[in-house]
Amino acid sequence: MPSLANLDGLAVVLVRPRNPLNIGAAARAMSNFGAHRLRLVNPYPVAFREARSAVGAGDVLAKASEFKTLAEAVTDCILVVGTTAVRNRALQHPLRRLGEDTCDMIRTQLKTGRIALLFGSEKIGLTNDDFSHCHWLLNIPTHDEHISMNLGQAVAVCLYEIASCARAKAEMPEFEPATVGQTEKITETLLEALHKSGYVKPGNDAMCEKKARRLILRLGLETGDAKVLLGMVRQIVWKLRQAGKV
Amino acid sequence: MPSLANLDGLAVVLVRPRNPLNIGAAARAMSNFGAHRLRLVNPYPVAFREARSAVGAGDVLAKASEFKTLAEAVTDCILVVGTTAVRNRALQHPLRRLGEDTCDMIRTQLKTGRIALLFGSEKIGLTNDDFSHCHWLLNIPTHDEHISMNLGQAVAVCLYEIASCARAKAEMPEFEPATVGQTEKITETLLEALHKSGYVKPGNDAMCEKKARRLILRLGLETGDAKVLLGMVRQIVWKLRQAGKV
Repeated sequence: MPSLANLDGLAVVLVRPRNPLNIGAAARAMSNFGAHRLRLVNPYPVAFREARSAVGAGDVLAKASEFKTLAEAVTDCILVVGTTAVRNRALQHPLRRLGEDTCDMIRTQLKTGRIALLFGSEKIGLTNDDFSHCHWLLNIPTHDEHISMNLGQAVAVCLYEIASCARAKAEMPEFEPATVGQTEKITETLLEALHKSGYVKPGNDAMCEKKARRLILRLGLETGDAKVLLGMVRQIVWKLRQAGKV
Repeated sequence: MPSLANLDGLAVVLVRPRNPLNIGAAARAMSNFGAHRLRLVNPYPVAFREARSAVGAGDVLAKASEFKTLAEAVTDCILVVGTTAVRNRALQHPLRRLGEDTCDMIRTQLKTGRIALLFGSEKIGLTNDDFSHCHWLLNIPTHDEHISMNLGQAVAVCLYEIASCARAKAEMPEFEPATVGQTEKITETLLEALHKSGYVKPGNDAMCEKKARRLILRLGLETGDAKVLLGMVRQIVWKLRQAGKV
């Protein structure tokens, strides 16, 4: 159903990750959004090993590649983007905010070559040295009091935004509205129930009828719901008629 | 720097979460995006305890509230949205895709009342019974081959999209929606009428209950209409009770 951008050319680069769960989480988010090039720069060896051997570790992890330096990890890329939680550090780099405009730019460049998206270690993020390999930096807009995101969640949010290129057009459910003929039948039947139950008092018939009709119309019923509702009210009226005969 | 939507009125409801790490991750994403109402329905006790006592467990977790049933957890909400990875199940509910339009809708409604965003357990997600409490369902667009997201990552992606209101419109809805507490009363009363009238047959109680709740929720009642409808159904039930005594 969803049309996602093709992320074949996107490499997710984890720089010095320490936690196997985060490596696994990054890989999982990648497969959710159709990215499959996972690269690890100087990961803690135990962490990488554990992540790979974890239950459910998929294809992305199995095919992940390891590099000694960041420079080697991004050498085939035409664009290197570093993620950062920091917004006001005296940055030497253009800082862009994750959003539609930024991701349009990334998707456009993805058509011409490979792009690296860098995520730093859980503890200190990317260093100034890492930044020096980047064309520009990317910030996920977060709340001022808690700017630092979990690594796996940051990867998920970035890939979601980059992949969802058709996001402006959220699909609306198909909705077949009931005809006035259908709603009118419900109104009539409901009115009979209201009469038989004593809701309609002598002298207020006309007002009740308007009230009921307005109410049923305002519900904006879908055709299937209209049938269900009519069936319910009919059964109730049948019972009230039976009771009236006693 | 970033202007995020105010998520004070948004309750993140985890239904039967099993993994303390996921509970913690959901709480962390919430504080990243300025949401702070965490509600747990029937969590595995050990998981909740461990999540709370974890290093760095913040304010959101400390203030999380626990409920026995989903109905109790959403009773003060005007809109209940269930998340699902499933797209083609014979869903009885409108299914919307996470994106700008959907989130515009959520943000607009957040101005008038509380909204519950539901996430199911890691293993099976939300059940059909859980769905029956929802006004509509929300799907995160993912790759066909790997549709199921990690719980903490799904929370992060949803909150990111809802909070990032760069283009959010300031429009106010023209009506005041009914709370779930109000619609639930209508459902209960209607069910009594359906029982007493013989619409509910032995063996189909549960199905009828879901059907009725779904129907009433889908009506998208305004608070005044909810009162009128409740008054009508109550009167009908009163009459049916009288008839039963004869």
